[in-house]
This record gives sequence, structure tokens and C-alpha cells, in this order.
Amino acid sequence: MVRIAVFASGSGSNYEAIMQYFTKLTSPKAEIALLVCDQPGAGVLERAAKWHTPVLVVERRRFASKKQFEQYILAQLQQYQIDFIALAGYMRLLGPTLLDHYLGRVINLHPSLLPAFPGIDAVGQALKAGVRVTGVTVHFVDYGMDTGPIIVQKPVAVELDDTHNTLSSKIHVVEHELYPKIVYACALGRIYLDGTKVCWQNPDEAVKE
Amino acid sequence: MVRIAVFASGSGSNYEAIMQYFTKLTSPKAEIALLVCDQPGAGVLERAAKWHTPVLVVERRRFASKKQFEQYILAQLQQYQIDFIALAGYMRLLGPTLLDHYLGRVINLHPSLLPAFPGIDAVGQALKAGVRVTGVTVHFVDYGMDTGPIIVQKPVAVELDDTHNTLSSKIHVVEHELYPKIVYACALGRIYLDGTKVCWQNPDEAVKE
Repeated sequence: MVRIAVFASGSGSNYEAIMQYFTKLTSPKAEIALLVCDQPGAGVLERAAKWHTPVLVVERRRFASKKQFEQYILAQLQQYQIDFIALAGYMRLLGPTLLDHYLGRVINLHPSLLPAFPGIDAVGQALKAGVRVTGVTVHFVDYGMDTGPIIVQKPVAVELDDTHNTLSSKIHVVEHELYPKIVYACALGRIYLDGTKVCWQNPDEAVKE
Repeated sequence: MVRIAVFASGSGSNYEAIMQYFTKLTSPKAEIALLVCDQPGAGVLERAAKWHTPVLVVERRRFASKKQFEQYILAQLQQYQIDFIALAGYMRLLGPTLLDHYLGRVINLHPSLLPAFPGIDAVGQALKAGVRVTGVTVHFVDYGMDTGPIIVQKPVAVELDDTHNTLSSKIHVVEHELYPKIVYACALGRIYLDGTKVCWQNPDEAVKE
């Protein structure tokens, strides 16, 4: 079994979608072995309890430096024998301490069509720019902010009467449909990084169970 | 009749799509009254001859300044009583001489989901960035490069085996379907600019004949 850690800071709706997807696999070759959360009160922790996922709650402010913070997380990931990391609303940049060990084995989900609208509040940025199409990006994580090689993107139409809430909801629907199967395919190495190039072992089969 | 000038520099496939659309209108309220072209050998000129559109061929290098170049075009537009301008592969920025007269009455088509990939070779830029979704944008023209208020956007998927040619072709198909009806709706004022805000008189009816 490939062992995956999900990193989340918020309500955990993408973690939930991942759990539902993995639960339905008939002969899974990967599992969610750990949830890493940097916010003690985050909603994702209730969900993790419900799904019986082991949890690592780790606050940045408990550590003198980002390096020490990540060294602690890294030690725990190694303890849990984590092979692969799926960021799911984790509101921190991964630094070199973690990334040097997991480069090519960390993916992220971002609520825009990158390279448009990186960083925080991508939905608000899109609305402010007045775009009529935005979307969802899954990408390998590199040392930049939402800059890594793109794996897959899906468009979401922005209607004239969309608000931050309605557009966010539509984006969430696409995320929940898309991310779990990409997490699974990447964890299994069906989609992998060769340098900065995203490679698909078999594009037609990669996201099938 | 609202009188429209199409500006083009190249093969004129979008001009062609516009002509086909306007020809099929049963009781058109706008017409293509002039083609403005800055390239004497451009393919669009043959198409204009076929469609019997009056043509203004005007080379930038014949004028000492951009201002004089645009003053000449402006005089011709006024001669032809042009109400509205549709840029269709016109490879120059409109300067203030023209724009001051036609602001809010000039639209442009760009082969990407702006604000991503403005400027030249948007398709090449998208391929180089490795995006999996690009598209088409129609926007009101302002004084910047591909920066004006967005009217409509359509996504186009980038497949793993897409080349510059195959992706360009897919984008052209979307452009040809989209641009003529937006040109018509904007020329008629069904879609209009209020300051920097794009307004639709009646979103459900705007792009119907």
C-alpha cells in the first residue's frame, strides 16, 4: 500500500471527498495514512475523527523557525512511513526541509486556472478581474507559490450573477470530483514528474481504478 | 443599420466567420461596412474581395508617427460612418487617437483566457506554461495590451499530445463560433460598457438574433 498524508488547514471538504473516493475503491493500492493539520480548531479534524484517520496537529507558533516546524513534521511523516503528500487547503508554503524529501511526491489543488490567480483568495481575485471562466488546477508542488508543473485543469464558468459564495460552491464541486482520483493516480505513480515535465504512464488508464 | 469596421492583419478567418454569420441574419440591424488592414499582402484582403466588403489598406510605415497613421484611419472611419470596431487578428495596439473616439465601441478577440497569456503567440505561451485549459476571450478594448473589460470567455482543453497547430485549430473553432454573435450583440448595444463594467441589457436575449 502506498501511504498518503493529506495536509489541510480548514473545513476539510476535499479531505472528505478523498476519503469517500478511497473508501469506494474495490482493491485500493493506496490509503490515507495521516492527516496533517496546522490549525487546532479546524473542521477537518472532526472529519478525520469520523473517518478514523490518524491526525498530526502541529502549530507553527510552537516552533522557533519554519525549519524546525518542518523537521518535526518530516520526522512524523517518516514515522508513519508516508510515501506521498496531497495538499488539500493547507494554507502554508512547503519549505525545502519538507520538499527536498518529497519533491515529485507532493501535489496541490488550487481554485483557479493557474498561472492565473495564484496565492490566497483565488476566487475573489477572479471575480475582481471580471473573468468569465475560472477553474481548478492540480499541480505538482515546487519551491514557488502555486508555480509547480500542472497535472490537470478543469474550467468553471463564471455567471453574471455569481457571488463569492456561489462561485466557490461551483469550484468545490469540480474539486471534489477531480482531486481524489488524481491523488490516487499520482500516489500510484501513474502520473509522475520527470524533471519539470508531467508524465502519464497511460493517459487513458491513469485515473481509472 | 449599425456600421461595423473589422480590423485584421492576417488570414482573416474570423472576418470570414463574421461575414458568414451576418449573411445568415434574416433582418440584420448591423453590417460590416469596412475592412481595415495594415498588411497589403494579407489573406483577409482576398476574402474581403469575395464578400464585397470595402477595404482600407493602410501601412504604418507610410506615416511619420502612430498619431498620423491613426488620424488617417479615423478620417476614413468617419467617412464610412463607422459606429463600431471589431478587431479580428489586428496585430497593433490602438492608440488614443482612435480609442478616444471609439472607447466602449471597440472589442477584441484574444486566443487565451485573459489575464493569462496576453500579447503575441498566446497559444505558444500556453503550451510553454503547460496549462491543461486555455481558451478564448472577447473583451472591450482599453488603452492597455489585452487588458480591457472581459465580455465573454470560453475554455479549450489542452490535450497531452496537442501541438501549436492542433491547439490553434481548436481555438479557432471556438473563436469562429463565439465572436460573430458577440460582435453583433455589442454593435447593437445589447452588451455595453459602463465605465469599466460590462453590462448586458438582457443576458438571455443578447446573443440571439
